[in-house]
Amino acid sequence: MTSAAELGAVTSRRVGIDVGGTKAQAVVLDRAGEVIESAQRPTPRGDHSLDTLIDVLIELADVVGHDGTLGVGVPGLVTRDGVLRAAPNLDGVADFAIADLLSARFGSAVYVDNDATCATVAEWQLGAGMGTTDMMLVTLGTGIGGGVVSNGRLQRGSHGFAGEFGHMVIDPSGPLCPCGRRGCWERYASGSGLAMLAREAATGHRLHDVVRHAGGDPQAVRGEHVQQAARDGNAEALAVIDDFARWVALGLVNLTNACDPELFVLGGGLAAGADLFIDPIRRWYGELLYQPHLREIPGIEFATWGPLAGAVGAALLPELAG
Amino acid sequence: MTSAAELGAVTSRRVGIDVGGTKAQAVVLDRAGEVIESAQRPTPRGDHSLDTLIDVLIELADVVGHDGTLGVGVPGLVTRDGVLRAAPNLDGVADFAIADLLSARFGSAVYVDNDATCATVAEWQLGAGMGTTDMMLVTLGTGIGGGVVSNGRLQRGSHGFAGEFGHMVIDPSGPLCPCGRRGCWERYASGSGLAMLAREAATGHRLHDVVRHAGGDPQAVRGEHVQQAARDGNAEALAVIDDFARWVALGLVNLTNACDPELFVLGGGLAAGADLFIDPIRRWYGELLYQPHLREIPGIEFATWGPLAGAVGAALLPELAG
Repeated sequence: MTSAAELGAVTSRRVGIDVGGTKAQAVVLDRAGEVIESAQRPTPRGDHSLDTLIDVLIELADVVGHDGTLGVGVPGLVTRDGVLRAAPNLDGVADFAIADLLSARFGSAVYVDNDATCATVAEWQLGAGMGTTDMMLVTLGTGIGGGVVSNGRLQRGSHGFAGEFGHMVIDPSGPLCPCGRRGCWERYASGSGLAMLAREAATGHRLHDVVRHAGGDPQAVRGEHVQQAARDGNAEALAVIDDFARWVALGLVNLTNACDPELFVLGGGLAAGADLFIDPIRRWYGELLYQPHLREIPGIEFATWGPLAGAVGAALLPELAG
Repeated sequence: MTSAAELGAVTSRRVGIDVGGTKAQAVVLDRAGEVIESAQRPTPRGDHSLDTLIDVLIELADVVGHDGTLGVGVPGLVTRDGVLRAAPNLDGVADFAIADLLSARFGSAVYVDNDATCATVAEWQLGAGMGTTDMMLVTLGTGIGGGVVSNGRLQRGSHGFAGEFGHMVIDPSGPLCPCGRRGCWERYASGSGLAMLAREAATGHRLHDVVRHAGGDPQAVRGEHVQQAARDGNAEALAVIDDFARWVALGLVNLTNACDPELFVLGGGLAAGADLFIDPIRRWYGELLYQPHLREIPGIEFATWGPLAGAVGAALLPELAG
């Protein structure tokens, strides 16, 4: 069998596909790391979604023109040897050897990893983390995911599950998490967390203007309403953003105490509000960090790749494995 | 200059010195990893303690018979290039280039790292973590320290500060920590934490027998009293141990979500009570772990080296650097 490194060397088009909850996104990178081709298909749902997904992946790879190895990012727990343990958005998936199956169907090596791990690779190799040897990507979306680069290497962990940051417990008497525990980081510092903090403020008789804009019902207040009001200078909305930023910073501090990166890259849907979040997050991080006077303060930047991060990182997986 | 690898290759006696709060411990390892020589001296305190410390290190190295490179563990923040940023037990130390100074005085390469990092190396190379590629040492002493091995490499972090686990915040409304924040992990899961949980139980009119043994004052109850009573089968003392184990497990779960090791090794002073702690810690860890049904459960073992871990790991530093 031809080794991954040999295949990588002869492949001039680097193809990556990111399977998201609603759509599968394919990209082709040229040697300079530019996206020269892209295509999308809806992610299949319901019965037989897995068989259909394989067909979609093959179709997408054909459309963008793959000529060798391929990388695929999937939203779920992926073991180090490419077995998809579970995927909340793909019905009935359990212990599915997706890398082996795709390799057989494509007739060439297919590398599969978690979508947040792929996004980490994209930001590290071609984005906000370029040139770093120790960085952590933290995706602030509906939940929180991420990935770890230490000592110039992607760290998948012993079983491939490194970077499940969202379920670090940071408040054991906090709100119940769907995972069954209380006070997970993503209950506060994700998109859902911002919405919860906003509703708490609204039902606590703050955010009057925001509640009015949301139609009068405090329970209808969403993170977007608060972001908009904060951009308009509303002091109560800015206070909610500040509270949110403190929770984000608290988790970043915990990760710093474990791994001591030189840089955090913040991705996910909330990266779209970077201008609003970045300053308070950095300020709280500096305040909460352990012994800040004795160390260089790690940097905090927002991701540069946006929604393409997963596909771009997937396209780079074969080289990292080689 | 002769490279570290060359020096390491010609050194048959591997010498390590661990500078603790009260004593400096030197060991010599043979090629098989057995301790074939050891010596101790009191750690100098007060004025000029740093100059005196250098003399003590030179004396200890002479006593055990060093013939080349040397490793030294120190209790403080050590940068990746061997600068001691601060050491609570050594008066007046700040930004002290200890590795360079010792190398000049010894006329051979001297490697310096944090004492918990050294203990991590000892357990990984010659102790409970032998053969693993992804392990974390967590020292449960007065506070909590530790170290990280990922992908078969010691991970110092970008600035050398990886493994400062004790100051992960796990309860932001918890007790004040000397570091200035609230609810740091070591407020609950260390020797001081066990003592706090014991005093809380005692002042809450539990632990009657234990309070009597401690002389009648609930504030005089220490961790040792509770451990002894728990060994004697006292149900209220066992409940305190169980509560303590839950806090230990909570932090281990958080570290798992970040780094996904295959094994945790628990060291530090509380490792002496391993028989009492290990079962409840493992049980709580299994209960609190994220998606335990989808993964192999990482192992939890107590350290094998005891108080020699730091010196043994220090003796191995030159080889790891080579």
